[in-house]
Amino acid sequence: MTTAPSPTARTLADPDTPFAVVDVHRTRRNIARLRALADRLGVALRPHVKTAKSLDAALLHDGAPGPVTVSTLAEAEAFADAGYDDITYAVGVEPRKLPRVIALLRRGVTLRILLDSTEQAMFVAAAAREAGVALPALIEIDCDGHRGGLKPDAPGLPGIGRLLHDAGCLDGVLTHAGESYFRHTAEERREAARNERDAAVAAAERLRAAGLPVATVSVGSTPTAHAADDLTGVTELRAGNYVFFDLVMAGLGVCDLTDLALSVVVTVIGHRPEYGWILTDGGWMAMSRDRGTAVQSQDQGYGLVTHLDGTPVPDLVMTDASQEHGTLTARDGAALPELPIGTRLRVLPNHACATAAQHQGYHVIDGGHGTTAPAPAIESYWPRVTGW
Amino acid sequence: MTTAPSPTARTLADPDTPFAVVDVHRTRRNIARLRALADRLGVALRPHVKTAKSLDAALLHDGAPGPVTVSTLAEAEAFADAGYDDITYAVGVEPRKLPRVIALLRRGVTLRILLDSTEQAMFVAAAAREAGVALPALIEIDCDGHRGGLKPDAPGLPGIGRLLHDAGCLDGVLTHAGESYFRHTAEERREAARNERDAAVAAAERLRAAGLPVATVSVGSTPTAHAADDLTGVTELRAGNYVFFDLVMAGLGVCDLTDLALSVVVTVIGHRPEYGWILTDGGWMAMSRDRGTAVQSQDQGYGLVTHLDGTPVPDLVMTDASQEHGTLTARDGAALPELPIGTRLRVLPNHACATAAQHQGYHVIDGGHGTTAPAPAIESYWPRVTGW
Repeated sequence: MTTAPSPTARTLADPDTPFAVVDVHRTRRNIARLRALADRLGVALRPHVKTAKSLDAALLHDGAPGPVTVSTLAEAEAFADAGYDDITYAVGVEPRKLPRVIALLRRGVTLRILLDSTEQAMFVAAAAREAGVALPALIEIDCDGHRGGLKPDAPGLPGIGRLLHDAGCLDGVLTHAGESYFRHTAEERREAARNERDAAVAAAERLRAAGLPVATVSVGSTPTAHAADDLTGVTELRAGNYVFFDLVMAGLGVCDLTDLALSVVVTVIGHRPEYGWILTDGGWMAMSRDRGTAVQSQDQGYGLVTHLDGTPVPDLVMTDASQEHGTLTARDGAALPELPIGTRLRVLPNHACATAAQHQGYHVIDGGHGTTAPAPAIESYWPRVTGW
Repeated sequence: MTTAPSPTARTLADPDTPFAVVDVHRTRRNIARLRALADRLGVALRPHVKTAKSLDAALLHDGAPGPVTVSTLAEAEAFADAGYDDITYAVGVEPRKLPRVIALLRRGVTLRILLDSTEQAMFVAAAAREAGVALPALIEIDCDGHRGGLKPDAPGLPGIGRLLHDAGCLDGVLTHAGESYFRHTAEERREAARNERDAAVAAAERLRAAGLPVATVSVGSTPTAHAADDLTGVTELRAGNYVFFDLVMAGLGVCDLTDLALSVVVTVIGHRPEYGWILTDGGWMAMSRDRGTAVQSQDQGYGLVTHLDGTPVPDLVMTDASQEHGTLTARDGAALPELPIGTRLRVLPNHACATAAQHQGYHVIDGGHGTTAPAPAIESYWPRVTGW
C-alpha cells in the first residue's frame, strides 16, 4: 500500500514499479507555452486541474492560487482548502450536489456551476433563493455536438438566462470543443477554435441582446487552445491535458514527443522470444485501458517505450495489457532489443488524464537538470486528489 | 475527497455520485457456487483477490483467512497484516521485489512467487542462499499462448526446477488459461479447462520424472474454473473475477446478468433529445475505459443501465464516456425513457476488475434483504487496497 515515496527513493531506479513519473521541467515548459498563447490572445488562462489533480502541478502556473477549472467537487474542495477561491466546476450540476456547492460559496469561494436546461436553471434559482446565496452559473453551449450544451441559437437560451439572472445567478457562458481531439491538421483545429469562439460569443450576444449581463465567456480544449488565432469576445481559456500532454496530442501534432511530461516506470519480468514479446509489470492497472491513438493514423498501442532516462527505445511499443502485465513488441519487424529481467523502462501513455488517474501520485524528476546516472533523480512527490 | 461513506448515507439515494456498489448477496452466492465446484472437483480454492482488493470480500469465502492469490505486493502486505499466511503472488518476479518478498516470508507468511526463466531461478536461488530463507517458487506454465510461462515440454523446464530445488525453493507449477476469456461456448471452455489441467499436470510430471518434488499444481481462470469437469492431478483452483462477475462473463455465458454484484451509481445531469442522449455524471473515471464486450457478439458499450433497485432499464446502454460524463442511448431505436435530471441509475460494467479499480471502496447493499424503498439500504463500506 505504498502510495508515498520511500525515504530512500533517490532516483527512478529506486521505487518499486510500476509508478507514475512527472518531468517538472516539461510541465513548466508546457504551461509557459500556453500562458504565452493566452497572453498574446488577451484572455485569462483557467487551467483544468482534472488531468494532474495535483496542487503542486497547479501551483506551477503562478506560484500562488489562481483561477482553475475542476471536474469534481472533491477537486473543488481540495483546491479551496489550499486557498483557491475562483473555481469553475465544469460538469452539469444536479440537485444533490448543491449543498456542497453552497458550502463552498459560503466559505468565500466563487464556485461557478454549469447547466444547459430550464430544469436546472429552476432548481438552481430555487436553491439560491432558499439559501440566500447567489450561485454563479454558466450556461453550457454546444459548439460541435460533442456532449452537453445548448446550441447558440437554441430557442430556450434567453429564458434560461432570464431565470438565472432573476435569481442573481447568471455569470456567463461556457463551451468546450471536445471534437477537436479528432481534428488531425492544424488548419482544422484553427477552424475548430474559431467555431468554439463564435459559438460562445454568439450565445453571449444573444443573452446581452435580451438585456442579460454576461460576465464570463469561457472557451477551451487543449487542441483548440493551441490553435486559436483570435479570441475576440472571449474572457478566458480553459485547457487541462497540456500540462502533461500525451501520445494522442503528439499524434495530432499539438505537441512533440519531447513535450510529454507523464510516463510510467515499469520493469521487465519476462521474455517470450517465440512470440516476439517482452513482458513487464506495468499492465492496464498502471496505464489505464485508454487506447486513444487507436483511431489515429499511427496506433501507439498502450504506449511508447523509453529507457529510464527518457531516450526512446526505437520501435518498441506496449501492444497488450492485462491487469499487472504489459506486453512490449517491436514495430514492423524491427529486432527486439536485449532487455534483461529487472531492466527498468518508461512508457509514454495514450491519454495522460486516464493514466494519471490510475495512480495515487507522481514521483517528480527535473529533466532540466540533465540525466543523473544511473537514473534521473527524484526531486519530490506530488499526491493526487482522489474520489468525487 | 470523500472516500468513506457519509454517516448519513443510509441508502443508495444518499452518497454523492458516482460511486461503486457491491451486492453482498450476489457476491456470497457467486462464491458459494465456485466453492461447490471446487469441492466437487476435489481441489482447494485459492481466490485471486485482485478483483475486489477487499479484505471484507475475501472473508466471505471462509469467514477467516485462507489461501489467496494476489497481483501486487501491496495486496500481499495488506492481507498479511490481516492474518493471511498462505499467499501466491501470481506475477513474474524481478530482483528488486525480492526484499519485500523476503520480509513477508520472515513474518511467517508462505508467500509463493512466480517465474518462468533460468535467469529468475538463478537470482531467486541466490537470494534464498544469501538471506538464509527458502523462497517458495512456482514455475509458470504457458497453456495457451496468452502471456508468460514455459510450454510444458520446454527443454529448460527441468533445469529451472533443479536450480530451484537445490536452493530449497521449488514448490510447484502454475498456469492460467487467459485465452478462455475469448471462448464463447461452454464446450470450448470445457476444452480450455482440460487443456489448462493437462498443461499443468504434464509439467508437474516432467519435473517429478526428473526427481524433483512438486507440491503445488495450480490452475485457473474464471471461465475455465466454471467449466472444468476433471481436475485430476491438480491441487488448487484460482479465479478472481467470479466474486463480482461482469458483462464480459455474462456475454460468454459463464454467469447471468442477475449474478453481477458490482455496479456504479450515477446521476442524470442532462438530455440531448436531438441526438438521443441522456448524460450522466459517470464517465470513464467511474467506469474505466474497459470495453471488453466490444469483441463479443453483443457489444454492451460502457455498460448496461438499471434502476437504483437493480431492475434493468430496457434497452438503455452507456455508449460513450468522457472523464466525468457518461452518454446513455437507447438500443436499436427503442424509445428513450423519461429520466429527469437528478435521477439515479446503476451501470453494470464490462470488466469488474477494471471498474472496481477506479474506486477507493464499495458501498455495500444486500440484495437478499429485498429492496427497501426508496432505494436499497447501505449496509457497510468496504475499502480497497491501493497501489503496488
